[in-house]
Amino acid sequence: MAKQEDLFKNVISHAKEYGYIFASSEIYDGLSAVYDYGQNGAELKKNIKDYWWKSMVQLHQNIVGLDAAILMHPTTWKASGHVDAFNDPLIDNKDSKKRYRADVLVEDYAEKIHQKAEKEIAKARKRFGDAFNEEEFVTTNPRVIRYRKERKEILERLAKSLTEEDLDDVKALIEELEIACPESGSKNWTNVKQFNLMFGTKLGASAETASDLYLRPETAQGIFVNFSNVQKTGRMKIPFGIAQIGKAFRNEIVARQFIFRQREFEQMEMQFFVRPGEELKWFEHWKETRQNWHDSLGLGKENYRFHDHEKMAHYANAATDIEFNFPFGFKELEGIHSRTDFDLKAHEEHSGKKLRFYDPELKENYVPYVIETSIGLDRMFLAVFSSSLKEEQLEDGSSRTVLKLPAVLAPTKAAVLPLVKKDGLPELAQEIIDELKWDLQVQYDEKDAIGRRYRRQDAAGTPFCITVDHESLEDKTVTLRYRDSMEQKRVKISELATLIKEEVDFKKWLK
Amino acid sequence: MAKQEDLFKNVISHAKEYGYIFASSEIYDGLSAVYDYGQNGAELKKNIKDYWWKSMVQLHQNIVGLDAAILMHPTTWKASGHVDAFNDPLIDNKDSKKRYRADVLVEDYAEKIHQKAEKEIAKARKRFGDAFNEEEFVTTNPRVIRYRKERKEILERLAKSLTEEDLDDVKALIEELEIACPESGSKNWTNVKQFNLMFGTKLGASAETASDLYLRPETAQGIFVNFSNVQKTGRMKIPFGIAQIGKAFRNEIVARQFIFRQREFEQMEMQFFVRPGEELKWFEHWKETRQNWHDSLGLGKENYRFHDHEKMAHYANAATDIEFNFPFGFKELEGIHSRTDFDLKAHEEHSGKKLRFYDPELKENYVPYVIETSIGLDRMFLAVFSSSLKEEQLEDGSSRTVLKLPAVLAPTKAAVLPLVKKDGLPELAQEIIDELKWDLQVQYDEKDAIGRRYRRQDAAGTPFCITVDHESLEDKTVTLRYRDSMEQKRVKISELATLIKEEVDFKKWLK
Repeated sequence: MAKQEDLFKNVISHAKEYGYIFASSEIYDGLSAVYDYGQNGAELKKNIKDYWWKSMVQLHQNIVGLDAAILMHPTTWKASGHVDAFNDPLIDNKDSKKRYRADVLVEDYAEKIHQKAEKEIAKARKRFGDAFNEEEFVTTNPRVIRYRKERKEILERLAKSLTEEDLDDVKALIEELEIACPESGSKNWTNVKQFNLMFGTKLGASAETASDLYLRPETAQGIFVNFSNVQKTGRMKIPFGIAQIGKAFRNEIVARQFIFRQREFEQMEMQFFVRPGEELKWFEHWKETRQNWHDSLGLGKENYRFHDHEKMAHYANAATDIEFNFPFGFKELEGIHSRTDFDLKAHEEHSGKKLRFYDPELKENYVPYVIETSIGLDRMFLAVFSSSLKEEQLEDGSSRTVLKLPAVLAPTKAAVLPLVKKDGLPELAQEIIDELKWDLQVQYDEKDAIGRRYRRQDAAGTPFCITVDHESLEDKTVTLRYRDSMEQKRVKISELATLIKEEVDFKKWLK
Repeated sequence: MAKQEDLFKNVISHAKEYGYIFASSEIYDGLSAVYDYGQNGAELKKNIKDYWWKSMVQLHQNIVGLDAAILMHPTTWKASGHVDAFNDPLIDNKDSKKRYRADVLVEDYAEKIHQKAEKEIAKARKRFGDAFNEEEFVTTNPRVIRYRKERKEILERLAKSLTEEDLDDVKALIEELEIACPESGSKNWTNVKQFNLMFGTKLGASAETASDLYLRPETAQGIFVNFSNVQKTGRMKIPFGIAQIGKAFRNEIVARQFIFRQREFEQMEMQFFVRPGEELKWFEHWKETRQNWHDSLGLGKENYRFHDHEKMAHYANAATDIEFNFPFGFKELEGIHSRTDFDLKAHEEHSGKKLRFYDPELKENYVPYVIETSIGLDRMFLAVFSSSLKEEQLEDGSSRTVLKLPAVLAPTKAAVLPLVKKDGLPELAQEIIDELKWDLQVQYDEKDAIGRRYRRQDAAGTPFCITVDHESLEDKTVTLRYRDSMEQKRVKISELATLIKEEVDFKKWLK
C-alpha cells in the first residue's frame, strides 16, 4: 500500500517536473480538481487524440466525426434524464459547515472495517509464515468473519437505500454508525439531499428571465441530437458510427485521484447505430476492437481487465468496463455500453422530431439501437503516463528514471544534441533539425554533459536522441540512441528521417 | 448588397447540406449563436488546427504548446480586468421586455441614415448615367450632405459617451433620436446598464457558499498564469512562445453572422515573450509570419487587409488586425497585439508570485513583454469555407458548385468510385481504400452515375476522385480526377498513395 502511494506521488511530481501536468491556476493556489496540461502534456494529449481519431474515423469508412458545442438546448438534458436524475446524495455537517457525499462517508467507514480485517490477516501471515493458509484463516477467524459480515451489511443497506432513493435511511445509517465529520469530529448532521452534478449557467439574452443552460455532463447527447443531420447529409447506412472528442463538466463534490476524476474533463466517444436485435453482436465486436486498440500501445496486458456489469443503467442491456491498473488500483478507463434505443427515443418524445432510419433491405423505418464506446481522455493520459514511468537499475550499478511512452505518442520524437557547443556542431545539429522538423516534433538541447542530457530526455519520454560529434562533420553520420534499450548506433544523417518516421508511424503501431 | 446577402445565405445552406455546420441542438429549434460542426466540419476544423499547430509549434524550436482548462481560479479574471471592465451597455424596453445593446440600437439608426444617403446617390447615378460624377454629387447635394453630417455626429457622440462611460448620455441619445423598440415600436426605455459578458457558474463544493467561477472569455490568461511553470520546466529562454488552442465563451447579447460571432468559440493563440524594448521588432516579425501563413493557403491576397489600430486597448502599445473579406464584408480574422508586460504584472500583483525571467546575457531579472497572435478558429473556418465556395460556368454550358478548399485542409482527401456496382469493381475499390486509409482520409461512393458522383464530391470539397473501371482489373490503373481543373489522368494504383500524399502534404503548402 505504502509503495503504491509512493508510486502515485512520484507520478504526480514527475508530471509537473517534466511539463506534463500543472495544477490549474497554480499561482492562485490552484482550482480544486482541475488541471492544465503543460508543454509536454499538451503534445501527449494531442497524440492520444490523434491515435484514437485515426483508428476510429480514418480507418472506418462507416464512422464519421462530429464536433458539437458544449452548450446545448436545455431540453436535451431533460430528455437524457440528467436534469432529474444526475445527482449525488450530499450531507452537511452543521458544526464544521463542510459538505460531504453521504455515500462516500459510509463507504469510507466500510473501507476502514475492511482494513481492520486485512490487518488481522497480515498479522497471521507474519506469525505463521509459509504455513499460513489464508482461505482457512478467513473462514474461521471470528474477528475477520465479524468484520467482513459487518462491512457487507453496511454496503448492502447503503445500496438499497440509494436504489430506493430513501435518503432518510442513508442519514439514519450515518447516525447509527456514529460517523463523525473528518474535519471537526462532530456528529451533528443535516438531512441528506440530492445535488445535481451539472454546472449551470445563464444565457442573458432576454430582459425577463435569463434562460438556464448547462455545461454538458457528457458528450454523447451531442451525437444523439445530431443523428438525423449526420445520417442524411452524410448518406450513412446502418450500421454506422459517429465519433467525437470533447470536453464535459461535472460538479463533483469529492474529486480526487489527480486527473482521474476532474470537474472538467475530456471524452473520446463513438456511438454506433445498429439494427435492433443485432446490438449484442456489435457489442462483442466493439469490446474486441477496443481491446485491440489498447493492446496496440503495449502498456502491458496485465494492466487491463474487463468488468462486466451485472446491474446496469436503466438504458442499457449490456455493459462492460475496461479497467486499468492505475497507481491507485484497477479503475474504469473505458466503458462499452449497449444503450438500446433509449436516447434516440427520449429525444423523439421531447423534440417531436422523428429520429429514424429507413432500412432499404428490411424496407422498414426504425429507431436504431446504439453501442457506445466511451473513453476518458484524461484517464487514458494517466494510464499511459503512469505505466510508462520506470525506475531502472543499470548494469553499472547506477539507476535511471525513464518514461517509456509508446513512441507514437511521445511529445518529442527526437532530441538533437551537439556533443560540444563549438566547432560547428551546433550549426550541424540545427541543419538536422531544419530537415526533421517538417515531419517530426524535435528538440534541440545543448546544455550539460551528454550523459546528463540523455538522462533528461529519458525522463521526459523522448524515444530517440541524435548526437552530433566531430566525426559527423566529416562523414555525415550521427549517433542514434534508443531510449528504451539505450543502444547506440551510427547512422547516416540522410537516413534519419525515414528511420525515425517509421518507428513513430501510426501504421506500424496499429496494424 | 443583395448579391452579398445571397452569397452568405448560400454559404450557410451549403454548410448544412454537406455536413459542415449544423445549428446546435437543431431538433430543439437550436440554441442561438451556438453551432455544431458536422462530419465534414469536424475534419476541416481539425485540419485547420493541425495546420496552425504544426506551423507554430512543430516548426519553431522556441515555441511550445499548452492546454489549460476552461475553468480557472476566479482571481485570474480580477487580475485581467474582465470582472470589472468586460461589459456591454444594455437597455431594456419596458413594454416589450426585450433587451438590446444600447450601442447597437444607435449604430443601426446611423446605418439607416447611411442607407438614405446611398439611395440618393443610386437614384442620381441612374438619372445621369455615364455622366454621373459621384464625388461632385456627394459634396454638393444638400440631402446627402445633411445625412452624412447627421450620421457622423451621432456616431461621434456615441463613441464619446461610451469612452467616458456616460451611460445616461447613451440613453439620452436614444431618446433624442426617438429610437423605438424594433419588436414593439415602443419608446419606453429603461436606463442603460453595463452587463458583464462572462458566463458565470458555481462550484458547489462547500456548504456555506458555492464559489463563483467563470467560463474563460479568452484563452490568453491560461498562458500567462502558466508562464513560470512552462519557462522553468521547459528550460525556455527569452525570446520564446507558448501556443494554445481552446474554447472560450462570451455571453453576447447580439450574436449574429453565423459562426463569426458565437457565444462558444475557439481561439488559436500564441503569446511570445520578449525582452522589454524589443517588442516592436517582434511585433513586425509576427505580422509578417502570420501573413505568410495565410498566404500559404492561397485563399486570395485580395481577401486580406491589415487594419492598424490607432486607439488601443489599455494594455497594448501596438496592435493590428488581419481582416478578411467575409460574405458580409471585411472583418477581423486575427489580431496581433503588443501587450507589453500588462498581464504578467497584473498577475504578479494579484497572486504575490514573481513572474520574471533571469536573462543570462543581460544578467538581469525582468517581467517579459508579450506579442500575441490570436486567431478565431471558427472565423478561419468561415474564411476558408466561404472563399472556397464557387459557382462555375463550364465550357459545355452547364454549371457546377465546387468547394475549392486547400487540399491540405480538405476533410476527405480522395473518394474512391467504382464505375459500376458489379464485376468486382467495388471489391477493387475497397482494396484501394484499405491501402490508402492508413495515410489519408478517404471515402467510398458507389451510388448514382459517375458524373453525379463527381459533382457531389466537388461540392463536398474532395480534391481527388479515383475511378475504378474494367480496365483497372486488367492493368491495375485507375482514373485520377482533379477537383479544381477537372483534369483526368490514368495512373497506376501503386502510385496513388505517393501522388496524393504529396499534394496534401503540409510541407508542400507551408514551405
